[in-house]
This record gives sequence, structure tokens and C-alpha cells, in this order.
Amino acid sequence: MALSGGLPTENGFVGVEGVRLVEEALRSGCPIQAVLFSEAGQRHHERLAPLIDRPEMAFPILRTTDRLFEGLADTEHPQGVAALVKPRETSFDDLVRTPESACAPLLVVLAGVQDPGNVGTILRTAAAFGVTGGATAASGVSGTASPYSPKALRASAGAALHLPILAGMSLAILLTQCKVAGIHTLASSVHDKPGAFPPMSGVSPGFDHAKTNEPSATNAPFLAPWEVDWCQPIALLVGNEGAGLPEEVERSADVRIHIPMASGVESLNAAAAAAVVFYEAARQRNSTLRQL
Amino acid sequence: MALSGGLPTENGFVGVEGVRLVEEALRSGCPIQAVLFSEAGQRHHERLAPLIDRPEMAFPILRTTDRLFEGLADTEHPQGVAALVKPRETSFDDLVRTPESACAPLLVVLAGVQDPGNVGTILRTAAAFGVTGGATAASGVSGTASPYSPKALRASAGAALHLPILAGMSLAILLTQCKVAGIHTLASSVHDKPGAFPPMSGVSPGFDHAKTNEPSATNAPFLAPWEVDWCQPIALLVGNEGAGLPEEVERSADVRIHIPMASGVESLNAAAAAAVVFYEAARQRNSTLRQL
Repeated sequence: MALSGGLPTENGFVGVEGVRLVEEALRSGCPIQAVLFSEAGQRHHERLAPLIDRPEMAFPILRTTDRLFEGLADTEHPQGVAALVKPRETSFDDLVRTPESACAPLLVVLAGVQDPGNVGTILRTAAAFGVTGGATAASGVSGTASPYSPKALRASAGAALHLPILAGMSLAILLTQCKVAGIHTLASSVHDKPGAFPPMSGVSPGFDHAKTNEPSATNAPFLAPWEVDWCQPIALLVGNEGAGLPEEVERSADVRIHIPMASGVESLNAAAAAAVVFYEAARQRNSTLRQL
Repeated sequence: MALSGGLPTENGFVGVEGVRLVEEALRSGCPIQAVLFSEAGQRHHERLAPLIDRPEMAFPILRTTDRLFEGLADTEHPQGVAALVKPRETSFDDLVRTPESACAPLLVVLAGVQDPGNVGTILRTAAAFGVTGGATAASGVSGTASPYSPKALRASAGAALHLPILAGMSLAILLTQCKVAGIHTLASSVHDKPGAFPPMSGVSPGFDHAKTNEPSATNAPFLAPWEVDWCQPIALLVGNEGAGLPEEVERSADVRIHIPMASGVESLNAAAAAAVVFYEAARQRNSTLRQL
């Protein structure tokens, strides 16, 4: 049993550490292979017992010494409790199914987010604002850190286990599937492009109409977050922390989302820009949020 | 001439380093005492010359060796150009004056933000979303890092020089002045308080009406960002990265702003939460933004 490494074991299980994450894993409904307590970690047993002792939970509870646990653990000051959990198997069909809690699917697609902490933070923010599913791009310029690495799982506060996620997808295939399924693709553009910003007056909030305002029909138009109808089925593409999305991906999207700023400089990091855009989606979908 | 240290010199000048920040200082209209180039930094002279050579600019251009410059510099890889600049003197009356570009004053008040990088990031985001002025609280639990330290200035990308800012204010005096001047005080609440969140239906967007929905008239009501009318004169109070605002400050505000989240956990850091709230203000004031 290896907790470190950051990638699922051969049988697809990943290690999660710490009482909070183990709690989220037990709550997630994902299959659990085992829960491990060290001597010191035993003090967390009481908090977790109501989740462990449910009849549908049939996995071994393992116990180990503090020393052995520290050798397995990925964190510097382990809390002495860990679990091996299998992230839910998700198909594209699962992703595009509208959950009861939402008016339409709202997906976040990470393409080129290399820092595992950012992957986790963005998934956590996405989940908090009611995003219904996620996908991460496979290798290449769009290659994104695994959402199941220890650092990403910690930063996601367990959201990576709760959200249905297609990890390590080919971006080209995913975008094609979105088009076929009628999911609008929106590229989150973190860069200020002087001159590229179209005049806002007269821009229609509808996707197809907005397109006709662009001089070139091959480039996606820029819209402010509030100019988008977020109750449609949407996949939001979020790119690299510094470089943003690969240019051809950004151009091929239905719409580019640009957060209007007073100054000419790039002023939000990728996680903050994503928070703003997810907030706008949640605001428009707020009748759903209010029921939670 | 000392660039390091982070506090204004006795005569109120602060050192800024790097071609981008010096450019912002020259553009800001703040008084400049001197501009300093190292041998290597001389290559930036051409970019800065149009700003330096204006008739109203009457300050010495100093030149030094690379070695001496590195000794003065606060950064690890200095670009060889620095300036001594005096932040604009701001009075409370300056802060509450409505600029031509806005429908009403929108102030950001930092209380307990201890990390200079966060102070700068929040000011930069605030300026980008059209905030018209700022204030930082003096010592005590609300003590906030100086907006003019090298780290804060860099993180602000110069916004600390462009925005009118009252630095090191007594929070009690500032809040009293706001009440007298008819500026609504809004506390940004980063913590999720289960049970404290009032039912949203029936909450009026007006400040005074919303208050009547609270069981206790002494506590400020919680509102979602979109439930606030941001075109009124507003001071947004932003607290410590972890602990938020001191409880008595949060309670004494006219309104507490809470970003509704699907999960029960605290899900945004202070800078991202501020970005979301400033975005909402900008969205409502967007007819102003569109003119920029």
C-alpha cells in the first residue's frame, strides 16, 4: 500500500490522507479498499466511525505503528489516518447528464493546468459554485496534473472525489464530443488582448448571434461573463496558469470569456479568474443554489 | 537612498524597482524625487524616456554601477532601474469624492491583511474592477501591511500608486467617517457560518429593508453579492487571510457579504473572494466600465 506517488495504483485506487479527506472519501460514495489508522491516528476513529460503520461499507480497517505510517505518508505532519479510494468511474454520458440540482450540465475542462495545487483549487471552487462535472486533458501542451495526486486532492478538499471527472482525456476528442452533445464550449481567456476586445454595445447574449458581430467567423467572439447565458449546457475551458489555453483551442471554442478590467494589465490569476466566472454562472443559476 | 525596508523614508518617498513599476510611478502623477539607472539598467532608458522627458518632470537622473545597485535593490535579480516616489497625499474627502468614471465612490478597506503580497493583489484587483479608493487599518488586530512595501507595490503592479489610499488609518475613526459621509459599510465575510445565513427569499436588496429581516437588529444581515445595490456609495471591508474581519467590525457593518457556496466549507481565499465581490460591483457598474 503506497500512499505517495500521486497516481492511482494498478487497480485504480488512490491514497488519501488526513481526517478531513478520509471523511470526504467515505462520504463520496466511491469504493474504498481500506482505511488505515496509525497509533496516534486512532484518536480520529470516533469522528469517522459513523461513516465507517454503515452496513454498505465492507472494507478492512488496518492499524499500523506511527513510524510505519510516517514512512507511507506524503505529508510532513501526517494525522495518522488514510484511505485507499477508487475515484468514481465516469463516462462522457455521465458528464452531460443534467443533475437534479442544476438547470443544465456545467463542466469545467482543465487544459494545461500544470500545478496540482491549482488543479485542486479550481475543482474545489468549481464544486462550491455548482459545477456538475469536470475533465482534465492528457499529455501535450494541454497536459494537466492529475486531480488525484495527493497535492491536488488536498487542495480540492475532496471535491475531486465528489465531482464526476474524466481524467486524462484527449482534448480533441472531448471537444468533439461536446459539440456533438450540444454542449457550448467557452474558453476562459486570462490575457488582456488590446484591440482584440470587441465593442460591447450591440453584442447579443446569444451564442450564434454574438458570433456574427465578429469580423472573422473562424475566431470565437469575446464576451464578458455577464453576457453569457449560463443556464445552457456549457463546458468552460481553463488553461495554463501563465500562458492560458493553447491559441487554437481558444479560437475553436464557441465563445471566449474575457473579464473586463479597467486597466490594461493582466490582473487575475487563473484560479481567481475561474472563481469570478463560476460565480457568474452560480449567480444566474442561483435559484438552484438557493435550494442547497 | 535606500530602496529596501518597505516603509517610506522620512520625507515620505518610497523606492520602486523594475522597469514596469518605475513606468507606473512615472505615469501615476505622484511626485518623483529621482530615477536611478545601473549600467545594465541603462537599456531600459529608451522605454522610459518619453515619460521622463516631459516638461513637468524635474528630477535628477542618477547613474550607478551594477554592483552598487544590487546592494540597494530589494529583488534578487534587479532590472537596474529604480525610482523614489511619493505616494499621493489623500484625505478622507478625496476618498469620498465621486470620480467622473464612477456612479458613486467604491472603497476597499483592508483590516488585518498581514501579508504584503495579499495587500498588493487585492489593491490590484480592486483597481482593475473600478474601485475608486482604498484605506488600510493601522496597528492592532486590524493592522494591515503597508501598501508601499516593495512586495506590496510589486503585487499591486503599481495600483497602490494610482489609487488614492489612506494608509495606516484608525479603523474606528474611518468607519465613523464613513457613516457620517453616508458611505455604506459592507463586510466581506469569508467564513461559512452554518445557521447564520438567513433565508434568502424575501430579502430586500435595499440596506435598510434587509435589516428588518434579521432577528437581532444589532447584527448586520448577510446578503449575497448580487443582492446588494453596488451603485450606492460603498466601503467594502476585507479582513485577515485566515481569520477574516474582527467579529465586532463585521457585526457593526451595515451588511455582511457572503458568497453562497454549494458545500459547507470555506472555499475561496481572501483574494479570490475579493475578486468575486469586486466583479459583482463592476458588473452592476458596467456602463461605467464600458466607457474605459
